[in-house]
Amino acid sequence: MNKIRVAVNGYGVIGRRVADAIAVQPDMELTGICDVATDWRIKSALMKGYNIYGYDEETSNNMNEAGIRTEGNLHDLLGKIDVVIDCSPKKIGAKNIEIYKEKKIRYILQGGEKHESAGHSFVAEENYESALNKLSTRVVSCNTTSIVRTLGALQRKGLLKKARGTLLRRATDPMESHRKGIMNTVVPEKDIPSHQGPDAQKVIPSLDVVTMAVQIPETIGHVHFWNVELTKETTKEEILDAFRTSSRIGFLKMGDGFNGINTIREFMSDMERSRANLYEVAVWEDLMTVQGNELFYAYMVDNQAIVIPETIDAIRALTGRVKTAKESIAMTNRSLEIGLDLSGEREENFYMTRQGKAQNLSQLRS
Amino acid sequence: MNKIRVAVNGYGVIGRRVADAIAVQPDMELTGICDVATDWRIKSALMKGYNIYGYDEETSNNMNEAGIRTEGNLHDLLGKIDVVIDCSPKKIGAKNIEIYKEKKIRYILQGGEKHESAGHSFVAEENYESALNKLSTRVVSCNTTSIVRTLGALQRKGLLKKARGTLLRRATDPMESHRKGIMNTVVPEKDIPSHQGPDAQKVIPSLDVVTMAVQIPETIGHVHFWNVELTKETTKEEILDAFRTSSRIGFLKMGDGFNGINTIREFMSDMERSRANLYEVAVWEDLMTVQGNELFYAYMVDNQAIVIPETIDAIRALTGRVKTAKESIAMTNRSLEIGLDLSGEREENFYMTRQGKAQNLSQLRS
Repeated sequence: MNKIRVAVNGYGVIGRRVADAIAVQPDMELTGICDVATDWRIKSALMKGYNIYGYDEETSNNMNEAGIRTEGNLHDLLGKIDVVIDCSPKKIGAKNIEIYKEKKIRYILQGGEKHESAGHSFVAEENYESALNKLSTRVVSCNTTSIVRTLGALQRKGLLKKARGTLLRRATDPMESHRKGIMNTVVPEKDIPSHQGPDAQKVIPSLDVVTMAVQIPETIGHVHFWNVELTKETTKEEILDAFRTSSRIGFLKMGDGFNGINTIREFMSDMERSRANLYEVAVWEDLMTVQGNELFYAYMVDNQAIVIPETIDAIRALTGRVKTAKESIAMTNRSLEIGLDLSGEREENFYMTRQGKAQNLSQLRS
Repeated sequence: MNKIRVAVNGYGVIGRRVADAIAVQPDMELTGICDVATDWRIKSALMKGYNIYGYDEETSNNMNEAGIRTEGNLHDLLGKIDVVIDCSPKKIGAKNIEIYKEKKIRYILQGGEKHESAGHSFVAEENYESALNKLSTRVVSCNTTSIVRTLGALQRKGLLKKARGTLLRRATDPMESHRKGIMNTVVPEKDIPSHQGPDAQKVIPSLDVVTMAVQIPETIGHVHFWNVELTKETTKEEILDAFRTSSRIGFLKMGDGFNGINTIREFMSDMERSRANLYEVAVWEDLMTVQGNELFYAYMVDNQAIVIPETIDAIRALTGRVKTAKESIAMTNRSLEIGLDLSGEREENFYMTRQGKAQNLSQLRS
């Protein structure tokens, strides 16, 4: 069967990670990436051997003048593909959607866009099948993805009554921090509930969830604190079992030295993950506390990486090439080495020796 | 009537603020401060005209050699006073308590010490009268003070069923940041519940409160996010009325440009408060949200300043010189210009013209 031909439009913090992830999927081909930048941000893509397309004629000319060989512009790229992943900034995204619709090309939006722009909001474990063969879907934002994964897992086990969360959002991305800086302040989102709760209801309409969100001054990732009312008195072990039904919720312990999110990032780096990506919701297992029918826990969300596996699954769903969530998730997880679990409770552990990893990669590439 | 003679042992972040506050009380005299430092941290006290005492003979000699004239050591200072405020680091505090007990001197501890070390934990609006004529009390920590003020206010109005809070703690104090730095990470406290909830129960034993706490990378102050279950469906106006029963809960609005805690600090600076201190719990009024019988809100806590007025009131309580919380709080509030309220709903507003402020100060000093 031919590989799914995919384009990435917008090569920023998300776009570059999506491109790298597509490149290691056995059933996909990264046909090309499209952007407007003419500096290192796009030269690195060229060095990786990706095909570059300018956003329009003018951009292509600028790129060629800057020594970046282009294969054409967005129009040309869209003529060669099955699915486009739009990772461009919000305003440009809206303009792009019109182009995709006109050309009748399947498109995947990121969480910054509105639900209505795609007509469907996607989290693989929750609603993969409802996206099969659709024209478009939207991979919900990083925070919303983590909410759907965790609360979805509790709900599937009949444990969830209602959930109230406080979301600590990183100030800016490392790649942008020279421009925006790390502010020395704390900036609440201007409404309660913040938008993430309602957004999660776009995927699971029955969720009783309220979120409060606040920007804090660091660049590593988001952290959530949750207080969940359960349907009954429950043990911590039952909660862990519920969370373990998701292969994209990971566990680690403060007692293992994961005292701060910097150590979690460093661990991903040690594991030689691409860009030190943390694809899982990383739950502090020993911090988790159950009091009667109340559950308290905290986790880290890598805002740059958590939506990457979801995006890969969304590609398979829209094209209808893989019929079940289970099958697609297994392929994606294997290719990205997803399955963070230091509790040793899972059969498949993402720990791999360097040798094992090399074998795994060579199998993927063959 | 003679003024209450007070000593401050430990001239750090809290001690220096306590000293400044004592100095403007009409019924108190700052007899002296005691410390071990020989650098700017103590020279600034000398420039203010405070009497300096070395912690022991050796410290006094070091100070005198560094050009800091001392009036003696802690032993000498304790012979001249009615109450000592211990603001020294934890380990030294424990040692000091033995000295105070042996000399039968009334002492006030700060929130870093254990409840048992004083036998009483203090928040003026909640339990001033129970501290009258006691040998010792402990002013609870900054976060706990804010919890008791706010949840205490809701409880007094019969509105509080249970409260669940997420506490964002500043990484370090500005004065220490050259040593500890502002970390670029997020560090959860290693247990849920964190200690602040149980600590609040030392003041209000019946509180149903659970806290989760996390260090974040900024130096301006703490921020709390609360989800409160009320005893009934309530309006936001009723909640505000309940909070307004505390003169030490202040209100401001995101809509007035208070988007981040840096702007709140700047405002205190503009108001020419001593050291830009924020003594109130600063609640974002327009962020506050009521959904049925649930209340959501967020506020800032100035960890360096919020306990200062409580400490001043504790001095009056231990000496038995002022019999009611109301009377002491009014004196303290007036001297420190407490009563932050941008809603214009209160009779007494802390806004003062420069002229009004000067008059006020001259009255205080006369």
